[in-house]
Amino acid sequence: MCPVAGPGFLTLPDRASKPRDCGFTHVLDKGLPVATLESLVATAGAYIDFVKLGWGTAYVSEGVQEKIAVCRAAGIGVSLGGTLLEIAVHQNAVDECAHWMHALGLEYVEVSNGALDMSTVDKQDLIKRLAGEFQVISEVGSKKPSELMITMEWAKEMLDDLDAGASLVIAEGRESGNVGLFGSTGDVHGDLVESIVDIVPVDKVIFEAPKKDQQTWFIERLGADVNLGNIPPDEVIPLETLRLGLRADTTDTLPHPAGGRRKEP
Amino acid sequence: MCPVAGPGFLTLPDRASKPRDCGFTHVLDKGLPVATLESLVATAGAYIDFVKLGWGTAYVSEGVQEKIAVCRAAGIGVSLGGTLLEIAVHQNAVDECAHWMHALGLEYVEVSNGALDMSTVDKQDLIKRLAGEFQVISEVGSKKPSELMITMEWAKEMLDDLDAGASLVIAEGRESGNVGLFGSTGDVHGDLVESIVDIVPVDKVIFEAPKKDQQTWFIERLGADVNLGNIPPDEVIPLETLRLGLRADTTDTLPHPAGGRRKEP
Amino acid sequence: MCPVAGPGFLTLPDRASKPRDCGFTHVLDKGLPVATLESLVATAGAYIDFVKLGWGTAYVSEGVQEKIAVCRAAGIGVSLGGTLLEIAVHQNAVDECAHWMHALGLEYVEVSNGALDMSTVDKQDLIKRLAGEFQVISEVGSKKPSELMITMEWAKEMLDDLDAGASLVIAEGRESGNVGLFGSTGDVHGDLVESIVDIVPVDKVIFEAPKKDQQTWFIERLGADVNLGNIPPDEVIPLETLRLGLRADTTDTLPHPAGGRRKEP
Repeated sequence: MCPVAGPGFLTLPDRASKPRDCGFTHVLDKGLPVATLESLVATAGAYIDFVKLGWGTAYVSEGVQEKIAVCRAAGIGVSLGGTLLEIAVHQNAVDECAHWMHALGLEYVEVSNGALDMSTVDKQDLIKRLAGEFQVISEVGSKKPSELMITMEWAKEMLDDLDAGASLVIAEGRESGNVGLFGSTGDVHGDLVESIVDIVPVDKVIFEAPKKDQQTWFIERLGADVNLGNIPPDEVIPLETLRLGLRADTTDTLPHPAGGRRKEP
Repeated sequence: MCPVAGPGFLTLPDRASKPRDCGFTHVLDKGLPVATLESLVATAGAYIDFVKLGWGTAYVSEGVQEKIAVCRAAGIGVSLGGTLLEIAVHQNAVDECAHWMHALGLEYVEVSNGALDMSTVDKQDLIKRLAGEFQVISEVGSKKPSELMITMEWAKEMLDDLDAGASLVIAEGRESGNVGLFGSTGDVHGDLVESIVDIVPVDKVIFEAPKKDQQTWFIERLGADVNLGNIPPDEVIPLETLRLGLRADTTDTLPHPAGGRRKEP
Repeated sequence: MCPVAGPGFLTLPDRASKPRDCGFTHVLDKGLPVATLESLVATAGAYIDFVKLGWGTAYVSEGVQEKIAVCRAAGIGVSLGGTLLEIAVHQNAVDECAHWMHALGLEYVEVSNGALDMSTVDKQDLIKRLAGEFQVISEVGSKKPSELMITMEWAKEMLDDLDAGASLVIAEGRESGNVGLFGSTGDVHGDLVESIVDIVPVDKVIFEAPKKDQQTWFIERLGADVNLGNIPPDEVIPLETLRLGLRADTTDTLPHPAGGRRKEP
């Protein structure tokens, strides 16, 4: 099945349409103006499944409710950044934060423990607490380059988060793409990814991959319908072309048309 | 002649106005929303000669026809990215692609062979085939860092492309500015550029130069009216200031006013 | 005092509201379309104190007067880039430039000598000349990586600029954040900053800090209300979250709520 609304004369990799069960593109919004989000959704809304209002940006931005309305109308799920909830936990304001999320009409919540000190047990208690009210997207992996998680712990924590009630789990890469899943130069920790997909259902994992070479790596390894996160807004269309083999980096993923190529005259 | 609509109190390098025969700024659009393109053209349309809807982005974006209309009204030529046509060649869908380009009202077509396997002979046959229907902009240079072209081959292929009917030739640099004309850190392959401009008419070559230091290099070497390509949309105004000596990087290209500088009191 | 218009359930670092005497965010506009600036101001105007129409961009852009009007309505001061005035000095066109600035309704002028050859004495004469007509923001530090100023000279030149009539002084970092205050990889010259804040009133200095890690460094060293400049437009909201401890990089600057954290159930 080819979901693109395009002219249809090319044979492209299979790609699920919205609403879909996998192949999510999860966008990081670090404070977009309302009008900018509106025009992005008008051009590329078919390729956006989730928008994260990153870390505490929603707390200080004008127009958050308008932005959430734009997303809802386009079938895009919205959550706050996990860091904001972490701060609420540390300041004993989880109820107030949840109340605010309900007031905003949010259906998703991100639960992380990468920014402030929180045990995985506490994190999973928080997932249980919130899973009745929201769809929980948990996050695994520290935001601090100095705090490397042992490879095997990622998959275990992901499974435990899913057991606790999370619908999806995010593998940390940050906006910068140089921690968590990635080395300091942005190279993918391939062994870590393999240890995750060996154990955790791949359609439940969103891999943060802000850079083109990272996205290419995941698409070549896990296919057009891999879930990718922390996509910058202006990279949504470029990512969709990577998924579909329409950019030089991934043309080798294009299917061979029936009968092969005829030589052009 | 000074084309700027500005206040006119400075003496600036000569710079051709639109429509011009050289000094082209060729912009890479990797999926801009319609509203974003409209506001860019309103602010900087006098400095944009071509917009390339990069690689396969047009195939998956909403609003492509509106964007083409915005450009046409501002005297800006539009083409698809060459990679899309390369894929059409490999899938034996050139006629369908050409039909779509006509339906979109495109007057320009980019013909490249940097993404998929195509001989230069096949490429030049394709140029000949399309040159009757479109203005052809050919591209020379591989997109793959591993496939280095021998320096002398660039100029020869450019001349052959022009002979085959291309109106302009693009020297490859990609969006990233780290292949083709450039080393992996973005440094300009100066010998390659010299070997091109020794043989090929410089007003027929568009040098892809997405980064400021690369643009500066070409302006200092080839003048304010060098053709530059793969300019990011938000770098159009900055590039125009580089051309005109209005940024610190190129103030040494400013003409000395008659009578020299009088000491300020 | 907490100025954020947000939901108010968190305890955040003290932060002055507009109009403020310090804690300025000074944005670099390198040619934004009018509509883009309008939507930025609608979302983040409470966090923008100054907009610089960088180097000579205003000389070549359409819509400059509309942009100035948008800023004035939002209580945002606007200046041209210092490089444009430097060029006017070298072309003996300071009067014409000042006339144009008045015609545009600008109340601020940036006076620098980093792009073209100008002695500090000439610069301070220019500050004196313009201080009666405009609020002068002077700039200290060369734009050329090869021209390193001796550390002790920065503070002295800043004090002399203030004595000559400047209201504020900018410490040079450029759009790229790799000269002046910073090494070639963007690392902060900490000794230089210390030598400045030892002598110059910190609320009179705007530190150019375009990159997140640089902004974090200044906030951790000098507090939420440090003046920061050359902020890219799409980093205004992210910077505000850094100031307020709402991003993982600066959560350690959050105040401890009264009574400390209660363990979440």
